[in-house]
Amino acid sequence: MNILITGGAGFLGTRLALALLERGSLRGRAIRTLVLADLFPASHPALLADARVRADTGDLLERLPALMQADYDAVFHLASAVSGECEADFELGLRSNLEATRRLLEAQRAQQARTGQAPLFFFASSVAVYGSDAAIPLPAVVQDDTLPTPQSSYGIHKFVCEQLLADYTRKGYIDGRAARLMTVSVRPGRPNGAASGFLSGIVREPLAGLEAVCPVDPSTAVALASPDTTIAGILKVVEASREDFGGRTAVNLPALTVTVAQMLEALGRSAGPEAVARVRIAPDAAVARIVGGWPARFESARAARLGLRADASFDDVIAQFRALS
Amino acid sequence: MNILITGGAGFLGTRLALALLERGSLRGRAIRTLVLADLFPASHPALLADARVRADTGDLLERLPALMQADYDAVFHLASAVSGECEADFELGLRSNLEATRRLLEAQRAQQARTGQAPLFFFASSVAVYGSDAAIPLPAVVQDDTLPTPQSSYGIHKFVCEQLLADYTRKGYIDGRAARLMTVSVRPGRPNGAASGFLSGIVREPLAGLEAVCPVDPSTAVALASPDTTIAGILKVVEASREDFGGRTAVNLPALTVTVAQMLEALGRSAGPEAVARVRIAPDAAVARIVGGWPARFESARAARLGLRADASFDDVIAQFRALS
Repeated sequence: MNILITGGAGFLGTRLALALLERGSLRGRAIRTLVLADLFPASHPALLADARVRADTGDLLERLPALMQADYDAVFHLASAVSGECEADFELGLRSNLEATRRLLEAQRAQQARTGQAPLFFFASSVAVYGSDAAIPLPAVVQDDTLPTPQSSYGIHKFVCEQLLADYTRKGYIDGRAARLMTVSVRPGRPNGAASGFLSGIVREPLAGLEAVCPVDPSTAVALASPDTTIAGILKVVEASREDFGGRTAVNLPALTVTVAQMLEALGRSAGPEAVARVRIAPDAAVARIVGGWPARFESARAARLGLRADASFDDVIAQFRALS
Repeated sequence: MNILITGGAGFLGTRLALALLERGSLRGRAIRTLVLADLFPASHPALLADARVRADTGDLLERLPALMQADYDAVFHLASAVSGECEADFELGLRSNLEATRRLLEAQRAQQARTGQAPLFFFASSVAVYGSDAAIPLPAVVQDDTLPTPQSSYGIHKFVCEQLLADYTRKGYIDGRAARLMTVSVRPGRPNGAASGFLSGIVREPLAGLEAVCPVDPSTAVALASPDTTIAGILKVVEASREDFGGRTAVNLPALTVTVAQMLEALGRSAGPEAVARVRIAPDAAVARIVGGWPARFESARAARLGLRADASFDDVIAQFRALS
């Protein structure tokens, strides 16, 4: 099996690649090659050391013609400009998130016409499809059939690509699986400037002995998933039969709902009051407005039917992060 | 005011053009020019005789660069390949419905950057955005916040364009207004081969002394709007303030729910039993499945708040058609 991961050198792409290589197979077939396409080359030692891995480095749209010289049994399309970038640069969002996905879908349609096989196509959508429109306010609890009314170009393009994926799937060109990822916490590495960045930073930085700023009121509730839970969700979604996946619309991955105060309490239980003391609460109206617009509570019956489970507690999430650090 | 109507020589485009010219103004400003872009030239005598009207004939995507030499205060984007065409020719749908709308939006964004004015942009979406997905069955009554899960490329592209329109509006590039049109009945002219065609044909043909075939069981319920109600809805939607329009998502125009049996009863009241006798009931499983998949019942609170009303009865709809024939 030949697999392509776009965004394959990023945090989630790397975790997904490692998980796939460790399994050694997907849908019962051995993984022969794993192409990691990204703006920068993969850096994880286990990826560099694996003969199945090949890096393809550069702008995805520019790289596509060369990338599509090969046939893929599965594409995991994780590459994306982030929401802040898309708000600042409208054309970047159109190009990197909408046009790149369209071209990738067209390439897989051409491959299906060539080979007669509909490749698996996983699309990483986002909880950012949800927002409150003046006509359609977001309900207190998001259900599987809640109408997304995205309030950012990033969310709009994710939702649009979900629709295109559903149609290419209906036509039999691909076996499309779209899943809406929750905010991933705790992310390792450096702050990335995303509005959601503090949801990792307020744990990661204090554990490293650094100060962190929390820009929202601690009573703010958020919907999170750990990296392990996110990767497990992606794998369940692609391993499910089409019948079990149920329909062609995107599935909401499971979410742990916690308040920021509960996150800090868990930090205290894990690393003591001195860790919590490194977090300075300094509400920022702009960030609070963005984060407050995200849904915090989900009832995801479809994900439950797929056997997906949210993280049990934020204590577990911190323990997972500390075990890897 | 300079206005562009794409699909301007079609049935609805012609009716919209006539309504605009008769009003003489839009949003309180005199209409100076009205460009009717379509594959064929407008044919209605009142349009040919009006000095404000100019026809632009040809493929919309090919004509766009020339069309966009002018600035428009308002664009009514009605042009569309129909659903059957898009199912038969996937690339046609991508090109005519998705790509043409994207380019038109980009052209209006460029115009806004040039002029500092966000043009009105009406987008004719469709009830075809609704369908039953295995994961998200269509409810018995469609509400304003019912999640569309389109089951055709036509519906997918309409829904995708709604999303793009909302985002261009949010960014201030256009004043976008999307409305989902119901099945229009009674359409004049020849049968057009659409699955919904019989919903006009079973009235139009018998009134002309011709035989008509009804391919569904008469108990089938459908959601309809007369041409007058459809055009009135479009005008209300574009004349409303942004606040009254409420949000940026597409609005469902009002629908009259009737069964085919009730349509035939109204035909009998209007034209006698001999007209009804010209309709032959010959269920066609393929057509019945398509038509049965469309929502028939709506609760459209948003449309009601805009002052939009469905046709009062199918008797009224027939009377409207006979008055124009």
